[in-house]
Amino acid sequence: MSEVAAPLFHRAAVIGIGLIGSSLARAMKEYRLADSVVCCDRSVEACEAALRLGIVDAASPDLSAMLDGADLVILAIPVGGYAALADELGPLLRPGVILTDVGSVKQTALRDLAPAIPDGVHFIPGHPIAGTEHSGPEAGFAELFQGRWCILTPPPGSNDAALAKLIALWEACGSKVEVMEPAHHDQVLAITSHLPHLIAYTIVGTASDLEEHTKSEVIKFSASGFRDFTRIAASDPIMWRDVFMNNKEAVLEVLQRFTEDLTALQRAIRWGEGEKLEAHFTKTRAIRRAVIDAKQA
Amino acid sequence: MSEVAAPLFHRAAVIGIGLIGSSLARAMKEYRLADSVVCCDRSVEACEAALRLGIVDAASPDLSAMLDGADLVILAIPVGGYAALADELGPLLRPGVILTDVGSVKQTALRDLAPAIPDGVHFIPGHPIAGTEHSGPEAGFAELFQGRWCILTPPPGSNDAALAKLIALWEACGSKVEVMEPAHHDQVLAITSHLPHLIAYTIVGTASDLEEHTKSEVIKFSASGFRDFTRIAASDPIMWRDVFMNNKEAVLEVLQRFTEDLTALQRAIRWGEGEKLEAHFTKTRAIRRAVIDAKQA
Repeated sequence: MSEVAAPLFHRAAVIGIGLIGSSLARAMKEYRLADSVVCCDRSVEACEAALRLGIVDAASPDLSAMLDGADLVILAIPVGGYAALADELGPLLRPGVILTDVGSVKQTALRDLAPAIPDGVHFIPGHPIAGTEHSGPEAGFAELFQGRWCILTPPPGSNDAALAKLIALWEACGSKVEVMEPAHHDQVLAITSHLPHLIAYTIVGTASDLEEHTKSEVIKFSASGFRDFTRIAASDPIMWRDVFMNNKEAVLEVLQRFTEDLTALQRAIRWGEGEKLEAHFTKTRAIRRAVIDAKQA
Repeated sequence: MSEVAAPLFHRAAVIGIGLIGSSLARAMKEYRLADSVVCCDRSVEACEAALRLGIVDAASPDLSAMLDGADLVILAIPVGGYAALADELGPLLRPGVILTDVGSVKQTALRDLAPAIPDGVHFIPGHPIAGTEHSGPEAGFAELFQGRWCILTPPPGSNDAALAKLIALWEACGSKVEVMEPAHHDQVLAITSHLPHLIAYTIVGTASDLEEHTKSEVIKFSASGFRDFTRIAASDPIMWRDVFMNNKEAVLEVLQRFTEDLTALQRAIRWGEGEKLEAHFTKTRAIRRAVIDAKQA
């Protein structure tokens, strides 16, 4: 948001230049948060796109070359790819480097990465609560994080200075920062993010299995509620596959609660219990008001 | 949208001056679709609000007074109120009057109203696929119907001229009009509108049952998917109670399909079947593209 006098970092390396990675690269360049911003992506096309878009100073699939001299490394790939990258990543990190990520699940980020991180490297996982249904380097924009929360989950004994620098980074991007336990993060996000996405994917999938004629009408008349679900269900499939594979317990638990509640409403519909439906539909309005009051609407 | 040389109607009476009724009243006045626009609402406060907002020429809870001289009567109350109104409404309708409604369920609209409609009155149910999560006369706006579909479900033997006038009315409001069978309407809307609303009401209800501390975090981090559901789940409780009570069979049927699909995804998560999740999440993107192509996004 605001430009800083001296950049927070010398060389910031973003690994994975998708929606979040490219938005962060743009923000770091635009707000001058690092002397240079580089990216590494296994896709040559994505690297070329990042260079063409002018959002990084260098880009290459060569991890070693991109991490050379970096004092900030940001992992912005689907969380399912962390374990496979860990052994390659670890030896490339010099003491004093700050490593963070932007993944949607935090317990497995620690599980998959921490063992491979050398002593002296400051690994502090993070998760910006921001995004759109679009993917790839072209989809990013510097303002994505403005007014949004970013959750950091520092492991016990984390370096205070490193944490302070990451907080400064996110605040400079316009975010509000919250620090919490990884397990708590995964539980809260299972409700606010993972379950809503699973439900949206389900309902859009149910519609896409309809016979062609009805399906075309569903699309035609989608403004009546359905279209909001199609937006959510257009999010990146790999990213979301990995979220559900990595936050299984919390998602299954909240899904069980959801199914019980849906079954109760279904029963009220079947038995014509209008007063139960009305009471439920009235209760949910209070949550909307709270979301508006919290300026998250 | 466009002003017409001679108004389509002499006196248009809107019964129920909520979001849809007041939007239609505004549109009819702004686009000069009737010489005068009046409204009847059992709430004196709503009538006073309509007069204060200047969206009607007259307003009163007295149905007989408001319908006197009306050649167009638009029912814009929750569908659960149709049956109770039918016996009072019928004798007030003169031959030649066009009666329509804006309710979300069309089979029960016909069931509850048709027997009380005198011969010579042209009853053609309708349903504009438009709305917001806000309620009441203040929430309406003339542009609500622009670019949106309106479905008309004329019973067999409907008067062609009356149907043509209703089509002209909605097109003048900026809508595209589709004519279909009531049963088919109820089936399509169960998928595009009723199921999405039920799901949103459920998930927001599940969240509102959480302990206070977690609930406040759900609200704080709602931008990650949950907030879109809170908007839908803030819709009018009485209207939606009536929708589910009146489109029970179609809703229960599509809900059964949804539950089967959700159970399949739940099982894939439990057993770590990533390829199944990815295939499903990829499939749903095509529907989003179709919604965008249909200019309904």
